[in-house]
Amino acid sequence: MKGSEIETLVQLLARLPGLGPRSARRAVLHLLKRRDTLLTPLAEALLRVERIIQNCSVCSNLDISDPCSLCVDPKRDRSVICVVEEVADLWALERSRAFCGLYHVLGGTLSALDGVGPDDLTIAALVERAGRPEVVEIILALNATVDGQTTAHVVSDRLTDLSVAITRLAQGVPLGGELDYLDDGTLTAALKARRPCS
Amino acid sequence: MKGSEIETLVQLLARLPGLGPRSARRAVLHLLKRRDTLLTPLAEALLRVERIIQNCSVCSNLDISDPCSLCVDPKRDRSVICVVEEVADLWALERSRAFCGLYHVLGGTLSALDGVGPDDLTIAALVERAGRPEVVEIILALNATVDGQTTAHVVSDRLTDLSVAITRLAQGVPLGGELDYLDDGTLTAALKARRPCS
Repeated sequence: MKGSEIETLVQLLARLPGLGPRSARRAVLHLLKRRDTLLTPLAEALLRVERIIQNCSVCSNLDISDPCSLCVDPKRDRSVICVVEEVADLWALERSRAFCGLYHVLGGTLSALDGVGPDDLTIAALVERAGRPEVVEIILALNATVDGQTTAHVVSDRLTDLSVAITRLAQGVPLGGELDYLDDGTLTAALKARRPCS
Repeated sequence: MKGSEIETLVQLLARLPGLGPRSARRAVLHLLKRRDTLLTPLAEALLRVERIIQNCSVCSNLDISDPCSLCVDPKRDRSVICVVEEVADLWALERSRAFCGLYHVLGGTLSALDGVGPDDLTIAALVERAGRPEVVEIILALNATVDGQTTAHVVSDRLTDLSVAITRLAQGVPLGGELDYLDDGTLTAALKARRPCS
């Protein structure tokens, strides 16, 4: 009915997170209605990103240069390394402008179910970096999920013999959070970690 | 922080229906993790579709040939033309295998708000097709929305002088639909259009 070329494109788009077959079909029609303003620029942007974006050999960030612009930036504090699961988490922290040290992207979380072991993540490279004399603190900024916290535990174990401080993000009530809508786990964590009003 | 090439790609992907900035960022990272299996094939599929898919000059369907494979298919009933808003609706009807006549894609609906007038749709071409001697019925398969039904009304008016039957899709309870969950409008339409049990 529709050309196999369209079907191929639909199937590829449907593999993107957040898109299924139906939304992929809608996206293809949307693209075909906007050939010059969207379809062609998108194809070219994909090819360009494919050609010039690479993984940083130090921190596994994605950038046009290796080492990445964060790793070579002289203004960043080289004594603190923030460990994140994915590049998306690095981007989120950079958007917050709350951190100006270096990063280390693990590339995921340990998962027995999905067959992801320590060797599939960049844990060995992290241990090597953490052993350098200028590093004084490792912040484990992993997701507050079961997988994330399991991974944090394993990473923390690997770093424990080094003379670096190992910290993790505070858990508690998110800003703007209403107690009535929070899950029990968050409330329990926030209560346990309560602090004196200053 | 992240290369402007990635930012460009994120912004282009965020313009697809169903994706926003956050899901576009996730999609880009997903693509960069699967360069050979997804990123490159997707870019190539986009370029290929851009190059070979065209609008059918008869019915405005999208296909690799013009007229499209449906318009030239000798097995299709040339006496009935099914009028749809978008190519997506044509695909939906083809999936149902319930129709084997010809199609006519309007290219949208009339909308005073969005400045879409009769000349922006393929209404004139439909009137011309409907006037051919072999055509005996025009099915208005437009969406059961305000815009869709307004457009059906206008199209119907334009066809009224021709000697073709003009029909529209039945409205009522969808298959598997539970009355308790249906809106009042659908229930009213289903009641009004009630039929004798045969």
